[in-house]
Amino acid sequence: MEILNRIEKIVKLFSQKNIQIAVAESCTGGYVSNMITNISGASAIFERGIICYSNKAKIELLDINPDSLEEHGAVSDVIVKQLANNIRIKSKVNIGIGISGIAGPTGGSPEKPVGLVYIGFSTETGITIEKYIFKTDRINFKQKVLEKVIQYLESINI
Amino acid sequence: MEILNRIEKIVKLFSQKNIQIAVAESCTGGYVSNMITNISGASAIFERGIICYSNKAKIELLDINPDSLEEHGAVSDVIVKQLANNIRIKSKVNIGIGISGIAGPTGGSPEKPVGLVYIGFSTETGITIEKYIFKTDRINFKQKVLEKVIQYLESINI
Repeated sequence: MEILNRIEKIVKLFSQKNIQIAVAESCTGGYVSNMITNISGASAIFERGIICYSNKAKIELLDINPDSLEEHGAVSDVIVKQLANNIRIKSKVNIGIGISGIAGPTGGSPEKPVGLVYIGFSTETGITIEKYIFKTDRINFKQKVLEKVIQYLESINI
Repeated sequence: MEILNRIEKIVKLFSQKNIQIAVAESCTGGYVSNMITNISGASAIFERGIICYSNKAKIELLDINPDSLEEHGAVSDVIVKQLANNIRIKSKVNIGIGISGIAGPTGGSPEKPVGLVYIGFSTETGITIEKYIFKTDRINFKQKVLEKVIQYLESINI
């Protein structure tokens, strides 16, 4: 499987460079962490994952601001920025990844359609937020998000 | 895929009965949570997942006793009992699931061979710890563990 080969390269490179990551994922439900940990040796680079499926879990485990949640909703650049920053800082890793979206098939609205996802990448030097709309089924949606995470990890130079 | 049909039945049944679960998984790296959240509607029953891959994450996120970790190791009935109990209590759910094992291919020892896994299920009325040795590859290992989790959730009557 091509994506696993790409993840294996990242695991090897990050191990050599002593780079660690942590993932706070909501809509992908553990898929990103699962795929990374399919690689033997992943424990050297993968410190933890938090599947903050409920808003309660986001608040309790990742110090997400309840007022921000209320104002912007869980699927927003504001919340994903907090997810990525806070998982990085709390885990003391180099790269924090935050993911929130609407996997569907239910839960969409005109402003926030099914397939909408924000992905945040936090490092010591800054944060990158990406926004996509993946109009597909629930399982493919997770794969598309993973692809974007892997692309980012391949491209980053820290 | 047969296992997804079985998970879908659990999601429907638990939704009707208002039963929530939370998962603290180490060696399975998010696979159990990922498979449960592949079902639309899973958010009604899946409150959170914690992928406590490092010992630091186990201590910080799940209040695992560092002395117990030192004495028994992360892959032990003692630690899995703490994982299952603590994720249930901290998440305020009905069923807490804790998983710790050695997915391999490295990391085994004569006392704790590759494939060893403890799975804990905590409810208000007690705790069940299951021990298995799945001699297979890393990805199949995760599937075997999921199978046991699903069997438990199908059989429980709360």
